[in-house]
Amino acid sequence: MPDWKLVIHGGAGAMRPIHGDSDHGARARQGLRNALDSGGDVLRGGGSAIDAVEAAVRVLEDDPCFNAGRGSALNAEGLVELDAAIMDGANRRAGAVAGVRTTRAPISLARVLMERGPHVFLSYEGADRLGREARLEQVENDWFVTAERRRQLDELLSKGGFDSEVKYGTVGAVAVDSKGHVAAATSTGGLTAKQWGRIGDTPLIGAGTYADDRSAAVSATGSGEYFIRAVAGHQLAERIRLSGQSLQEALDGTLEDIRDLGGTGGLIAVSPTGEAAWGFTTRAMYRGVADASTRKVAIYADEEPEAR
Amino acid sequence: MPDWKLVIHGGAGAMRPIHGDSDHGARARQGLRNALDSGGDVLRGGGSAIDAVEAAVRVLEDDPCFNAGRGSALNAEGLVELDAAIMDGANRRAGAVAGVRTTRAPISLARVLMERGPHVFLSYEGADRLGREARLEQVENDWFVTAERRRQLDELLSKGGFDSEVKYGTVGAVAVDSKGHVAAATSTGGLTAKQWGRIGDTPLIGAGTYADDRSAAVSATGSGEYFIRAVAGHQLAERIRLSGQSLQEALDGTLEDIRDLGGTGGLIAVSPTGEAAWGFTTRAMYRGVADASTRKVAIYADEEPEAR
Repeated sequence: MPDWKLVIHGGAGAMRPIHGDSDHGARARQGLRNALDSGGDVLRGGGSAIDAVEAAVRVLEDDPCFNAGRGSALNAEGLVELDAAIMDGANRRAGAVAGVRTTRAPISLARVLMERGPHVFLSYEGADRLGREARLEQVENDWFVTAERRRQLDELLSKGGFDSEVKYGTVGAVAVDSKGHVAAATSTGGLTAKQWGRIGDTPLIGAGTYADDRSAAVSATGSGEYFIRAVAGHQLAERIRLSGQSLQEALDGTLEDIRDLGGTGGLIAVSPTGEAAWGFTTRAMYRGVADASTRKVAIYADEEPEAR
Repeated sequence: MPDWKLVIHGGAGAMRPIHGDSDHGARARQGLRNALDSGGDVLRGGGSAIDAVEAAVRVLEDDPCFNAGRGSALNAEGLVELDAAIMDGANRRAGAVAGVRTTRAPISLARVLMERGPHVFLSYEGADRLGREARLEQVENDWFVTAERRRQLDELLSKGGFDSEVKYGTVGAVAVDSKGHVAAATSTGGLTAKQWGRIGDTPLIGAGTYADDRSAAVSATGSGEYFIRAVAGHQLAERIRLSGQSLQEALDGTLEDIRDLGGTGGLIAVSPTGEAAWGFTTRAMYRGVADASTRKVAIYADEEPEAR
């Protein structure tokens, strides 16, 4: 029987403090610890991996330090539009939502869709409509907006470009429970000043989010378009299932494949046998790992290079 | 140097004539031949696989026999909303669009997005906005609507359910050119009476559409939600790249995996070395294959069981 394990990320990038204040790093670390505690409590009590990743991501969504839920990047019209996906490795059931504007916890909306079916992927008004029907908490779009994100949008629109620092903002969690089931969850506010109804890798099953008890659970953060083209999450899992690579080999090989395409970012993964791995090709990735005996968080590459 | 090859599909299912008239099968066969001729002309002239799959799918989109472009299924509000994706195996560049309402050739819109970047996946108003900016032909949404599809929607809404016959309607093409590059393209009108902003497998890179010169090009048609969860296109390709399966083995194995999840449908695939394969777990699949010396089309399982 494997020990439970929980790995989380809060985005990857150069990690200039995205909210501009000097103690952002300390607050981000505390946010990661809170998420590990929330998901860890589920697993410590014998709960399932799918419940744990949902709980951990909800904490990160509510934390304004991260680009998901409250504190998300604003689109070109000054609105927050949220994407999220969740997948249960036990049965490969999945739920994904894009363009959420009023449902407070997009990851729980993805979970409701996963449970209810028959669809896997809902977008825009239809996604929030499911949230209302399922009685998930609804908020005004302004509830998600922080002053700093408003400032970033104004700055970016005045420059007329995209901010490569911000585009790596995403949160995610992967877990294996004491029954050996794995699950993955990812949530994001997307790109600052995004437009054209752009959908990134986060809500695409197989790209930003994937889980399969035969191999691994994976959550991604990075330059989403490259992660889509590399089908990052599924590639990592299939490297294990089809060629017998180890979890870390599969993760490193997938990051290399993404780099070959021109992309950068990070991945976290767990296996049904209780291994954990992370890796990133950026200067830093907000990340944390917890099991029955340890709980640690890190930001920069030179601290905690391995998820053990 | 491999011979060029082109494989197409026009949807899989029980193949009750979807437009209700007795000669629908004959017209569908002619539509498939027209698409093979259009894509085949490109390849015969030394053109690229990516140009060929776009050309073939454009013919199928314009043909009201198939659930893509003109003649598409109507959503719950009586509108046509179109999804499409295209991918070039030579560089794994891709473009995908969802919720297109006014751009006549969704597959060409996906192609424009692939060429222009930086995004891979655009949806709804943003997708058509790109179509207008790129000067792709715009039409009224009514242009896509046929009387028979209107009748099907009315019938379905009066019964209050989904029509499992229609939901397998999708068109696609895969090709390998004389340089050994592969490409894939898929286009669909989605489910009759669809709502909630549902997005199926067609525009999801790795699910309904995938191409990689290291393995194969794939286009899918079927119960989309299961194809998403199985990451069908990418799974087929990775079975070749990572475990050395043959094209047909990889296709059959992927269909079996989808069946294990509860899904049904079909796949077409080509390899960079010039092999072609198709397979389906439904009673029939509109399909065709062409190369320098042959051109054939089929609908039912017992005719042309193999793509050779």
